[in-house]
Amino acid sequence: MYISEITSLLSASFTGEDIDIKGVSTIEEATSSDITFLSNPKYTSKALHTKAGAIIVKQKLKIDMPQIIIGSPYLAFARVVSFLYQSKKHIPGMSKHACIHANSRVDTSATIYPHAYIGRGAKVGPNCVIYPGCFVGEDVVIGDNTILYPNVAVYDGCEIGKGCIIHAGVVIGSDGFGFVWDGQKHFKVPQRGKVIIKDDVEIGSNCTIDRAALTTTHIGSDVKMDNLVQIGHNVTIGDHTIIVAQTGIAGSAHIGKSVILAGQCGVGGHITVGDGCVAGARAGIANDLPKGKVVSGYPAIDHNKWLRAQNIYKKLPDLLKRIKAIEGRLKDLEKD
Amino acid sequence: MYISEITSLLSASFTGEDIDIKGVSTIEEATSSDITFLSNPKYTSKALHTKAGAIIVKQKLKIDMPQIIIGSPYLAFARVVSFLYQSKKHIPGMSKHACIHANSRVDTSATIYPHAYIGRGAKVGPNCVIYPGCFVGEDVVIGDNTILYPNVAVYDGCEIGKGCIIHAGVVIGSDGFGFVWDGQKHFKVPQRGKVIIKDDVEIGSNCTIDRAALTTTHIGSDVKMDNLVQIGHNVTIGDHTIIVAQTGIAGSAHIGKSVILAGQCGVGGHITVGDGCVAGARAGIANDLPKGKVVSGYPAIDHNKWLRAQNIYKKLPDLLKRIKAIEGRLKDLEKD
Amino acid sequence: MYISEITSLLSASFTGEDIDIKGVSTIEEATSSDITFLSNPKYTSKALHTKAGAIIVKQKLKIDMPQIIIGSPYLAFARVVSFLYQSKKHIPGMSKHACIHANSRVDTSATIYPHAYIGRGAKVGPNCVIYPGCFVGEDVVIGDNTILYPNVAVYDGCEIGKGCIIHAGVVIGSDGFGFVWDGQKHFKVPQRGKVIIKDDVEIGSNCTIDRAALTTTHIGSDVKMDNLVQIGHNVTIGDHTIIVAQTGIAGSAHIGKSVILAGQCGVGGHITVGDGCVAGARAGIANDLPKGKVVSGYPAIDHNKWLRAQNIYKKLPDLLKRIKAIEGRLKDLEKD
Repeated sequence: MYISEITSLLSASFTGEDIDIKGVSTIEEATSSDITFLSNPKYTSKALHTKAGAIIVKQKLKIDMPQIIIGSPYLAFARVVSFLYQSKKHIPGMSKHACIHANSRVDTSATIYPHAYIGRGAKVGPNCVIYPGCFVGEDVVIGDNTILYPNVAVYDGCEIGKGCIIHAGVVIGSDGFGFVWDGQKHFKVPQRGKVIIKDDVEIGSNCTIDRAALTTTHIGSDVKMDNLVQIGHNVTIGDHTIIVAQTGIAGSAHIGKSVILAGQCGVGGHITVGDGCVAGARAGIANDLPKGKVVSGYPAIDHNKWLRAQNIYKKLPDLLKRIKAIEGRLKDLEKD
Repeated sequence: MYISEITSLLSASFTGEDIDIKGVSTIEEATSSDITFLSNPKYTSKALHTKAGAIIVKQKLKIDMPQIIIGSPYLAFARVVSFLYQSKKHIPGMSKHACIHANSRVDTSATIYPHAYIGRGAKVGPNCVIYPGCFVGEDVVIGDNTILYPNVAVYDGCEIGKGCIIHAGVVIGSDGFGFVWDGQKHFKVPQRGKVIIKDDVEIGSNCTIDRAALTTTHIGSDVKMDNLVQIGHNVTIGDHTIIVAQTGIAGSAHIGKSVILAGQCGVGGHITVGDGCVAGARAGIANDLPKGKVVSGYPAIDHNKWLRAQNIYKKLPDLLKRIKAIEGRLKDLEKD
Repeated sequence: MYISEITSLLSASFTGEDIDIKGVSTIEEATSSDITFLSNPKYTSKALHTKAGAIIVKQKLKIDMPQIIIGSPYLAFARVVSFLYQSKKHIPGMSKHACIHANSRVDTSATIYPHAYIGRGAKVGPNCVIYPGCFVGEDVVIGDNTILYPNVAVYDGCEIGKGCIIHAGVVIGSDGFGFVWDGQKHFKVPQRGKVIIKDDVEIGSNCTIDRAALTTTHIGSDVKMDNLVQIGHNVTIGDHTIIVAQTGIAGSAHIGKSVILAGQCGVGGHITVGDGCVAGARAGIANDLPKGKVVSGYPAIDHNKWLRAQNIYKKLPDLLKRIKAIEGRLKDLEKD
């Protein structure tokens, strides 16, 4: 694809020769037919020595190479990747090695791979791809253009929106964790609710999302979840929220819109996290957070406070020494 | 179901009209044919405005509505849910799309869904349900009335008791993590033991439970495990213990009876946790705990101590300032 | 197997009668036909009372029992286990209940179980075992003697070396977590790279290993990974590295050779961890580490420093009291 074609799609301009770009790569590994990008100025010196055929930059570099100049080079690069590489094509139709209930409705444009199971009353929308080993329970609804990678299990009655990507091994709609002691054993609180996942959601491998006890566990649109994330029953997550790997959200927590929870975070049960909050890696949120708070630590506190406390933490042995020294000096003074 | 029928099953009494209850719901979402409950007095004001048809309470509320009065409203409510909603029915029999070894023994009342695999010598008890994609290895024993949700893998020789619920993606009996350096590479210590899971155990989605090296990884009866929990080899867990999501228990740890490990906890290898201990969220138990201890933090300490320490932790910058001020004042005094 | 045969294979000597050993067991549970071992001197008193038929020790014990004396009793024991118990045999061939693309290449000595799926262009080497429910994507390469336990998913284009053991539910090659805000929603950065896993790697149940954005997520040879480990995109891991359960490594981190990351650790994005580093349980590595560092805590610091700081942490309430007392005494002195 010629640079002029790329820039036309990006609505951007370029300098240098209008060469034919065959691939994309990193600054370090790009060859003369690749395009690369510079987003973080930290890597400028590397960019000056790249062997790429062209580069996407925010400000023109002093190198003799075709350059696309654009406000957000990383976004432009991601779009270029999507121009150059077509998504995988799947042959529509239902494999004869899949088990598809006669009373389900699978769109003819959908692809159902072997060993997939589609239960009674389930609906699978146009252009969906259901990989091998997936389980789509009774009355499940899967919106248009959604992909279920291998071995995804969607329990009965759950709903997934349009344009979602559900990675391998994800479990949607398993029972929430609810028991009550009956004097002799844990009595299981029946989990009668469901999970609703809105449009354009991506869920990483082996995540687990529990169905609500009575109502709905709700995942807003454009939510992006990394691998091995746990979502408890009755949780609601606002649109555009980002949840990084191995984070866990306990039952009945409410996460606002455009929140970012970094890796290995935890959110306590019944907690409300306001829109736009950001939690640093491993934050353990034990109290409600108003809109826009940036927190770290466990229990999570203001991020800057945490940075300062954390810094002193390392020096605790020194602090103790200073206190002992002070006590000694005090004693001397008191003797006088 | 009429309230009188419900109270007869609960051995409870009620006040008000004997209406027909069609469903259950939360205080907020209940409609006039639903029953709801009030357990936490915090929500009393909400209960006073519920649109439910009836309510289960501990003490009679001043509202004009049928009320079931009982000592444990939440337990009663859970039981009412189980009265009103029948468990899913499965048609007994083995799908012709399942692979069931000729030398296995599957009870005729069990349901084996398509794409399930039952290995040589395996036994599947009466009324069991084996969902699609499950792997039941050689000589595995699965007790009566146990459910394996989709894509559960039970390695050879492991045993699961009666009335268990194993959620999707759970792995039981994978090799324990044991290696010994042989001078050039990690030599794998063969894992020849197994996993035994007793009756009435529930295991959440995508949990992993390793087989013992030589003996048995043992999960006691009525143990309830949330999602993404990791159990190392040789671990033993006492009856009625509760393990919340994303907790990990390292090899050869012994967890007593009726222990509660909250979310994202860790227990170190070879550690013993006494009966009735409670670990707060994220506790990291690095030392043996006697019976009944309540701990938090990492390394886990007495919960109340942790609360106090945690509280001061936030004020470390302030503490440092105070120490500096003290040092200044001391210097002044010493000058005199 | 006679002790003399065992010692001949181990190149070790023994004292006592040359009895026939039928099995292996722990010091506590061994019976007269079992061999056991003593590695940790802590258990010497137990060893003196074992009912085992023979024991592997470092130094001869004062007991009347055949003893194999060798430098590394645990390694010797592991080897004896491998002598006594043969690995499971699998009948080579492709199940007619598996789906194997006509344009794949599966060695005739490999075993493909029912409900496995082998995609177009995939290569499965000699003696491989592919359990039920596995998904082997297009152009995937699986080296000789590698085992994929049930429900493993290997996305298109990924490569697994020889002699690897991949436990149930592992996902290899799912999309890395990369998005860029386009002003209205998160634009997905296409993940065009792959995962390469070298020889003799073992990966625990339900681990997730993401494909690189453009290049390769690389797992070195003889790497051993416990259960529920998360590896982000573009990560590289050096040979012989050990990663214990529930650890997460964020995108583009580089982990050296022979590193040990204990349970529930985290490594931040773009971090470099030098060869031979050791991270204690739950360490959160937020900064580059030079070779051979031993760290703990979050953010991870020198392990011994952490031990001291952690120790004082518990005493923070006491420290605060001392500071208050000092302030009072100072005030008194200043009054004078």
